[in-house]
Amino acid sequence: MYKKAGVKVFAPATVANVAVGYDILGFALEELGDVVIVREGSESGLKIKTIVKNKGLSKDIRKNTAGFAALKLLESLGLENEHIEMDLIKNMNIGTGLGSSAASAVAGAYGVNAYLDYPYTKSEILRFATLGEQVADGSFHADNVAPSLLGGFILIRDNETLDLNKLACPKGLICVIIHPHIQVLTQYSREILQPLVKLEDTVRQSGNLASFVIGMYKSDFELIRRSLDDCIIEPQRAHLIPEFYPLKEMAINFGALGFSISGAGPSMFALCNNSFIAENILEGAKKIYKEKKIKCTTLISNINHEGAMKY
Amino acid sequence: MYKKAGVKVFAPATVANVAVGYDILGFALEELGDVVIVREGSESGLKIKTIVKNKGLSKDIRKNTAGFAALKLLESLGLENEHIEMDLIKNMNIGTGLGSSAASAVAGAYGVNAYLDYPYTKSEILRFATLGEQVADGSFHADNVAPSLLGGFILIRDNETLDLNKLACPKGLICVIIHPHIQVLTQYSREILQPLVKLEDTVRQSGNLASFVIGMYKSDFELIRRSLDDCIIEPQRAHLIPEFYPLKEMAINFGALGFSISGAGPSMFALCNNSFIAENILEGAKKIYKEKKIKCTTLISNINHEGAMKY
Repeated sequence: MYKKAGVKVFAPATVANVAVGYDILGFALEELGDVVIVREGSESGLKIKTIVKNKGLSKDIRKNTAGFAALKLLESLGLENEHIEMDLIKNMNIGTGLGSSAASAVAGAYGVNAYLDYPYTKSEILRFATLGEQVADGSFHADNVAPSLLGGFILIRDNETLDLNKLACPKGLICVIIHPHIQVLTQYSREILQPLVKLEDTVRQSGNLASFVIGMYKSDFELIRRSLDDCIIEPQRAHLIPEFYPLKEMAINFGALGFSISGAGPSMFALCNNSFIAENILEGAKKIYKEKKIKCTTLISNINHEGAMKY
Repeated sequence: MYKKAGVKVFAPATVANVAVGYDILGFALEELGDVVIVREGSESGLKIKTIVKNKGLSKDIRKNTAGFAALKLLESLGLENEHIEMDLIKNMNIGTGLGSSAASAVAGAYGVNAYLDYPYTKSEILRFATLGEQVADGSFHADNVAPSLLGGFILIRDNETLDLNKLACPKGLICVIIHPHIQVLTQYSREILQPLVKLEDTVRQSGNLASFVIGMYKSDFELIRRSLDDCIIEPQRAHLIPEFYPLKEMAINFGALGFSISGAGPSMFALCNNSFIAENILEGAKKIYKEKKIKCTTLISNINHEGAMKY
């Protein structure tokens, strides 16, 4: 009997917030992400068969971001009873601040779409992936999902309508990721934020965000450097991350364009325009955490401009 | 005896805030502005000889934005005792929300610089003009001064260091100005603003501002339209301006890309990408105010891309 060929897809890890774009700015990494394999199943409906490298995640498709995103896509096509099964290869731990749940959601929706021979465009998948991501934290937001799906730097004007744009991106941007092995719960990291912001800080932050966008369009690294300065979120969250300020000082001194918390943390990112600077920051971070006997994972990555892909 | 030739310069009126860039975004108008004439004087030091069309303004160079801006420029060159006199032709009333004091400050500094045969570049004049503007309201901010001097749309990252950029600007943008003949004091208009902003409104407004910038770089009028939506300042100030919401509804229904308060008011602006729409809005505004027996001045203007100029 003829069996439909399976597909294997990759969706990248992402850095959200990016210092000055809390909840509305994110970018994708080249070097890290989740993999989903989709193939014909033996029974009716979508099933998650295997989860590799993270046994703790639920295989219930309604409780798993990859499963739920894929299910929503199938339902929209009236194909929820197709015989489909899925393997999820988690290369990231949850709660790292690198968009782990979003990468899975994107890989799930993108994988099923590829398996069905692309009934939807990438942009059309976004809503399903965002619904999948909602399983993880209950809110409908695309600041990780959109860059994971579309690649590059994504600025979201409005999360509700998913009105977003991919920014121009100068050549040569490199990212250093530092992930201390501690857990920061996204929900706690959100709850500690003050609900009100000083008007002057609102003005300052939005000037920095808008200037960051201009810097990207003009390939003006010095403007990007001056703009990556978060006066609202970072000061409220820095204490959740051991040695945040010594790490930041080290990175800035080595020449990072910017250094801040990735998403809700505890991972941190440094944006650089030079691989020597990136190497120095990576070694500097290892040294600081070694002295404090804190385990960490570090990574240097280019920006991923393509987003989710079949391979 | 040889007498140095006098110069005549023009500095345009400006719209600040532009819905989503409170204190950091402004653009210049083609059709309105102040004129300064600078020539050799009969006594030592800078003097304001004549003020045309606004007898109420002080001729004391330390109390007049044009005079003070010019004085600061002269002092920086050690020329404060030169024999220089100045006429100021005020084409705008103060307190209109169209950057009247800023246009005078720019014209004063630019005029003296031109008279001295350009010892400074335009960008270098900015600081003197901003010091002049500070005479009017006590704070150092360039959201009117910078577009009046440099033309186009200016986004200010930081007022203190005058770190700013001129945005790309799509062809065909037109502005309608509606100025009801009431007085709104800038200081009062600032004092009524709540000092704190909801975090979610901060996020929404900065997403709109950043998306407005993207729209300008991409010449995407529909993105500009969706982005020109002020959820922080306009709702707090609209009640200061008679018939604000009926005017806004009329303008949006006719097809304006955006409609909001110009600076601290009471003038309002509508941005359009079509001169028929602009004409309709202008006539619509006249009709609304005529019915309510409120006097107003209206104007259609292109964007001024050059800023201050000698002519």
